[in-house]
Amino acid sequence: MWVYEEQIDGKNLTEIINTEHENVKYLPNIKLPHNLVAVPNLREVVEGADIVIFNIPHQFLKNIFKQLDGIDFSKARAISCLKGLNVNKDGVTLLSDYIEQELGLHCGVLSGANLAPEVALEKFSETTVAYPLPKNYYPGDVDEDLLQILFQRTYFHVRTSPDTAGVSIGGALKNVVAIGAGLVEGYGWGDNAKAAIMRRGLMEMVRFGITFFPDCRPETFTVESSGVADLITSCASGRNVRVGREAARTGKHVDVVEKELLNGQSAQGIATMKEVHELLTHRGMTEDFPLLIAIYDICYGDLRIDDLPKVLADGPATQAGSRRNSVGEPAHQCNAGEDAAKL
Amino acid sequence: MWVYEEQIDGKNLTEIINTEHENVKYLPNIKLPHNLVAVPNLREVVEGADIVIFNIPHQFLKNIFKQLDGIDFSKARAISCLKGLNVNKDGVTLLSDYIEQELGLHCGVLSGANLAPEVALEKFSETTVAYPLPKNYYPGDVDEDLLQILFQRTYFHVRTSPDTAGVSIGGALKNVVAIGAGLVEGYGWGDNAKAAIMRRGLMEMVRFGITFFPDCRPETFTVESSGVADLITSCASGRNVRVGREAARTGKHVDVVEKELLNGQSAQGIATMKEVHELLTHRGMTEDFPLLIAIYDICYGDLRIDDLPKVLADGPATQAGSRRNSVGEPAHQCNAGEDAAKL
Repeated sequence: MWVYEEQIDGKNLTEIINTEHENVKYLPNIKLPHNLVAVPNLREVVEGADIVIFNIPHQFLKNIFKQLDGIDFSKARAISCLKGLNVNKDGVTLLSDYIEQELGLHCGVLSGANLAPEVALEKFSETTVAYPLPKNYYPGDVDEDLLQILFQRTYFHVRTSPDTAGVSIGGALKNVVAIGAGLVEGYGWGDNAKAAIMRRGLMEMVRFGITFFPDCRPETFTVESSGVADLITSCASGRNVRVGREAARTGKHVDVVEKELLNGQSAQGIATMKEVHELLTHRGMTEDFPLLIAIYDICYGDLRIDDLPKVLADGPATQAGSRRNSVGEPAHQCNAGEDAAKL
Repeated sequence: MWVYEEQIDGKNLTEIINTEHENVKYLPNIKLPHNLVAVPNLREVVEGADIVIFNIPHQFLKNIFKQLDGIDFSKARAISCLKGLNVNKDGVTLLSDYIEQELGLHCGVLSGANLAPEVALEKFSETTVAYPLPKNYYPGDVDEDLLQILFQRTYFHVRTSPDTAGVSIGGALKNVVAIGAGLVEGYGWGDNAKAAIMRRGLMEMVRFGITFFPDCRPETFTVESSGVADLITSCASGRNVRVGREAARTGKHVDVVEKELLNGQSAQGIATMKEVHELLTHRGMTEDFPLLIAIYDICYGDLRIDDLPKVLADGPATQAGSRRNSVGEPAHQCNAGEDAAKL
């Protein structure tokens, strides 16, 4: 395991991890397995690896790419645990695709209702691993089944999927929906309203997926841990719902709340909300995503939380009973029946 | 509106409602519309009605049927807001079908994330109305669109569906899942575990639906307010999650907790859990519903909450990656993509 070297009380962090089997800075009070070795040299860890697992803040990716320059990854495979997307006004790309493009390293995605402190304590949780086979697949190569065995524990259940886009989008957009859930909660509405926002959010996540990634599967959002379960967890606690709640309760701007409440950390949903708003506005698609747009307009425009029911009812794509597919996509098939059977 | 006549401080409840426009006993501090008239005579209210809405505790149904004996309902239609199912070891029937059989009154279902006190205060919420057209449909008859207009308000959004079974099963089984969510929460596991139980519960609800009602649509559970949103609300607060939480926290039996905690009210999920367990055992289907069975076994058998991850991983139908459809049903199609478009 590569660890960015830091000094803790005059000692190297890697040394502490390797002697005390504890990451005293980032995961204190959790005993790590003895066969997990911390190494400060990135190339040393990665060169010759069969599987590379990326679990870093994604703003460090560029620097990581530089350090890995020239390594032959043609036989290696990767899994990204990064949450987020590259979104700007021109479109959306996946971080796993970014890794693949920059390093020539075929990369899947792991995401789910996986709050790290709970996983570290071996409390029961589930996750989704999305891993389509690479184009240069060879017999004995890494596949879904091997990844399932690699990550599965009694307390940590793994479901696999080919839908890298669906898993990645779920991990990113749930943060925006969580801000919305926080807003209605902080405003004094109850569990009905919060559940309504989560349901609408889930539906807009599906639509976002199939709009920008035609192969995306709706059931990745409605059935998988990376979709509905991660949304539930994020709207229960988590930074984004707390920011929304506090903003509505106090009337303060979300940017102010983020600073005051999170003590220097950031609520990823705020950045994603802005990027998604820019994309949808630029593409003329705001009417197809009334909730995602409304959350932005409450935070940065003139919309009041009180207007939400009206805005969500009035959108042309939101009339109950209307079967118009407003994104102009062909009807996508899913099979929750089969998925239910392979839980 | 029929109201069971009671004396409140020497006055008839119907009189109080009609003069003060408030149901001081069952919905205090909420002003009712002036055009809502309370009537103590059931036949008087129902005879000649175009649409009859059932919103009573379902144990009173039999007595209601007696009072309505002989009324011609061939042109009337009904909506049931009752939550529950008739489940015993021989099978499952819907309360709406029971109404239809007993009265010859075609009956749909309304269910969703609709905690009544919040709806009464006009806080934002959504619901699902399931209403397949009657066999003796005539031009100008009640249809989905009319019901949508009838129930829709700015603060109360209605989506319609033909899936009476899916909507009814969601309303009943979510209570059992909520007990499970409460158990893991009270045991000290976190949001990951709770979300995992809810996701697994949602999948077993789908499977229960398509097993016992072949026309049932999986997306009624994964997409509608009556499914995923009602589950979210019920697992957030509500009697059933509180009973599960307290039982795990204190080690007391759920039956004891129900008495101590609910002050004479009942947690519907306890009765449903027992009935469903009886049905699945009798049919030899326990392996297909490992979560529903495990919740029962924790409450009434020897299973420990600690065993849950193992039990949920070991079921033959629960292996991630396995595509076996263990209920022997053909793969059911759903279309969350289209559903997302008609939010």
